[in-house]
Amino acid sequence: MVSEDIGLVEIVKQIIPVDEKWIKKARERTAQLLMPARALGRLHDISERLCGIQETLKPSIERKAFMVMAGDHGVVKEGVSAFPQEVTGEMIKTFLNNGAGINVLAGQVNADVFVVDMGVVSDIDPATLNGRDRFFIKKVAKGTANLSRGPAMTREEAGKSILTGFQLAAGLFNKGVQILGTGDMGIGNTTPSAAIGTVLTGSLIEEMVGRGTGVDDKGLFRKQEAIRKGIEINQPNRKDGLDVLSKLGGFEIGGIAGCILAGAYHKRPVVIDGFISTAGALVAHALCPAVVDYLFAGHCSEEPGHRLMLKHLKLEPILDLGMRLGEGTGGALAMCIIEGAVRIFTDMLTFEEAGVTGKE
Amino acid sequence: MVSEDIGLVEIVKQIIPVDEKWIKKARERTAQLLMPARALGRLHDISERLCGIQETLKPSIERKAFMVMAGDHGVVKEGVSAFPQEVTGEMIKTFLNNGAGINVLAGQVNADVFVVDMGVVSDIDPATLNGRDRFFIKKVAKGTANLSRGPAMTREEAGKSILTGFQLAAGLFNKGVQILGTGDMGIGNTTPSAAIGTVLTGSLIEEMVGRGTGVDDKGLFRKQEAIRKGIEINQPNRKDGLDVLSKLGGFEIGGIAGCILAGAYHKRPVVIDGFISTAGALVAHALCPAVVDYLFAGHCSEEPGHRLMLKHLKLEPILDLGMRLGEGTGGALAMCIIEGAVRIFTDMLTFEEAGVTGKE
Repeated sequence: MVSEDIGLVEIVKQIIPVDEKWIKKARERTAQLLMPARALGRLHDISERLCGIQETLKPSIERKAFMVMAGDHGVVKEGVSAFPQEVTGEMIKTFLNNGAGINVLAGQVNADVFVVDMGVVSDIDPATLNGRDRFFIKKVAKGTANLSRGPAMTREEAGKSILTGFQLAAGLFNKGVQILGTGDMGIGNTTPSAAIGTVLTGSLIEEMVGRGTGVDDKGLFRKQEAIRKGIEINQPNRKDGLDVLSKLGGFEIGGIAGCILAGAYHKRPVVIDGFISTAGALVAHALCPAVVDYLFAGHCSEEPGHRLMLKHLKLEPILDLGMRLGEGTGGALAMCIIEGAVRIFTDMLTFEEAGVTGKE
Repeated sequence: MVSEDIGLVEIVKQIIPVDEKWIKKARERTAQLLMPARALGRLHDISERLCGIQETLKPSIERKAFMVMAGDHGVVKEGVSAFPQEVTGEMIKTFLNNGAGINVLAGQVNADVFVVDMGVVSDIDPATLNGRDRFFIKKVAKGTANLSRGPAMTREEAGKSILTGFQLAAGLFNKGVQILGTGDMGIGNTTPSAAIGTVLTGSLIEEMVGRGTGVDDKGLFRKQEAIRKGIEINQPNRKDGLDVLSKLGGFEIGGIAGCILAGAYHKRPVVIDGFISTAGALVAHALCPAVVDYLFAGHCSEEPGHRLMLKHLKLEPILDLGMRLGEGTGGALAMCIIEGAVRIFTDMLTFEEAGVTGKE
C-alpha cells in the first residue's frame, strides 16, 4: 500500500468507520470463553474492537512501536512552563539513549521507540547519538510562533506537520508495526494543547488549563491569559481542524494528528497517551471524525482538561493512575492491558474445549 | 526462616507495619528521576511501598506466583449461583491444564500458578493432571455447611484454613517468590464473601450483594435472604475475624487470609484480586490490621460491594476495568502495572545521569 505520498484531503476521504460485522463476530467468540458472560469487562471491548480494526478473529499486536513527536513553542515567552526550552532537545537525546520514562515502559511491552524532531529550536546532531536509526529530523520550523500574539504557524506548516506524522507512521505500518503509540515532548506544550482543547471541545479555559510540568499559581494564571489572548487574536474556526492547529500549534501536535490519521487509513490501532496526544486526536477528529474508531485512550491524565477531551471524543481511558508525564508513557503502560485483552481472546479455552459445565 | 509450623497467635504477634524510613528514602530517589515531580502518579506510590516492604532501594518482583484457592459452599443449596457446583472441580482441572483466565494473564507476567483444593466437594485425581506439581490437596472438609442454616465451619476448621494458606504461601516465599497474587475458585463464593463484607465493613446487605457469576433478580434476592438469615442465626462477632470466617465461610477465603498473613509476616507484597480475595483480606485485617501495609489491590470489581470493602481497608485499586471473574485475574493484570512501577524506579535515569536541565 503506497500511502506515503498522499494528500490530506485524499487521506480523509479514504478513512472509513470500523466494520461492526467483525466486532459482532468477536462478541460471539467471547460468549463461548470459559467464564461467566463478559466477566473480564473492558478487556472484551478492547479485544473486540481490535478484531474490528484488524478485520480478523485472530487479533495480534505483537509488533508495537511508539512515535515520540517533539517540538518547541513560542508561547514559552509568556512564562507558561516550569522548565527551560533547552530541555526539549536534551530529552530527545535521552530518548535515543534509552533513559527516559517512555523507554522504560515501552521496553516492558517490547515496543520500539522512534523519535521525531518536528520543530525543535535546538539542532540535534544524530551522528553522536546511539539511537540515530530511530530518529527522524523533520523540522517544520525552529519552534512555533507565540500563539498569544498571532498564529502559531501558517496553514501550510500545519498541513505539513500532519502529513509528516502520517508519512512516518505509514512507513512503520508498511514495515509491519501492528499497533502504534503516540508520544510527545515539548516544553510548554500543555498550553497549545489546552488552547486546542478549549476550542474543539467548547470548554471553559479555566476547566481546560492545568499546571503542566508544575507551574505555580502565577504560572497557571499566565497560561490562562496566554490562551485567552491567543483565542481572541486568532479567532480559530472550530469547524476547521487545520485552522485550529495552525492558529494554536504545535508541530508535534500536528505530527500526532498525522499518526492518528495513518492508523485509521491503514486500519491499525493507535494508542493515544495523555493531554498532548489527545489534543492531536482532537485535531485529527475535527478533520475526520471516523478516526476515533481506531483509537484507544491509554489513560486519563492528572491534567484536569484531559477528561473533557476524552469525553468529547467518546473515548474511555484504560488506566487512571494520576500520571502526567507524556512521552507516550500512559499508552505504553496501557499496552500491557491491551496485550492481556488479546491473550484472553486468543488463548483462553472455551467451555467446550475445557469440558466445563455451563450456566444452569 | 522456618515459619511453616507457627500458630496463628504467634504469626499475628510478629507482623509489624512497614518501616516508613524506607518509603521516605524511596521518595527521595523518585524526586531525582528525569521528570516533573512525581509525574507518574500512582506508579511512584507503588514502587515506594515496595521499597518499604522489601526494605531496599532496589525493589524486585521478578519471581511472581499466584495461589488459586478453591472451595465449595453449602449455601449453594439456597440457589445463590448461576452455575452448578461441579464447576469448581472442573475449573481446577482447567487451571492445571493452563486454559483458564488466570493462566493466560499470569503467563503474560511470567508468574507461576499454584492451585489448592481447600475444600472442594469432588475429589480431583492429580495423577491424571498435567500440572500436578502445582496442585496441593489440603481439603479442610468437602465443602462448607450452609451458612444460612448455621455456622459454615467450626472454629477449628477456620483456623486450619488460614494456617494452611499461611504455610503454603510461606513455602513459596521461602523458595524465593517475591510477590504473590491471591486467586479464588468456588461456585457460590460471592455469597460468603458478601456476608463477610457486610459484617466486617458494617455495610447494608443490599449494598454488598451483587449478581456474582450472573444470577437473575430472583437469585439476587435469594442471596440477600441467605445472608440475612446467616447473620441472624450465627451472630458473627465482628471483633473476631476467626469467628466471622467460621460462621460465614469459606475454606478458600480462609486460605486467602492465610496467604495475606504470610506476606506480611515474611515482608513480601501480596496482590489481592477482587471480591472474594478482598473478603479474605477483610478476615486477615480483622485478625491483624497491619497486613494492609503489605497489600496491593489489583483492581476494583464490577461486584458492587467490592468498592466498600476496599474503602474499609483504605486500599486504592490499581485497575478499574469492570472485571468480575476472580481466579486472581485482576491481580495478574495489575502486576503489569506494578512491574512498570518497579522498572521506572530502577531503570529511569536521574536528571544528573541524563545531563538534563532541571526546573527553573
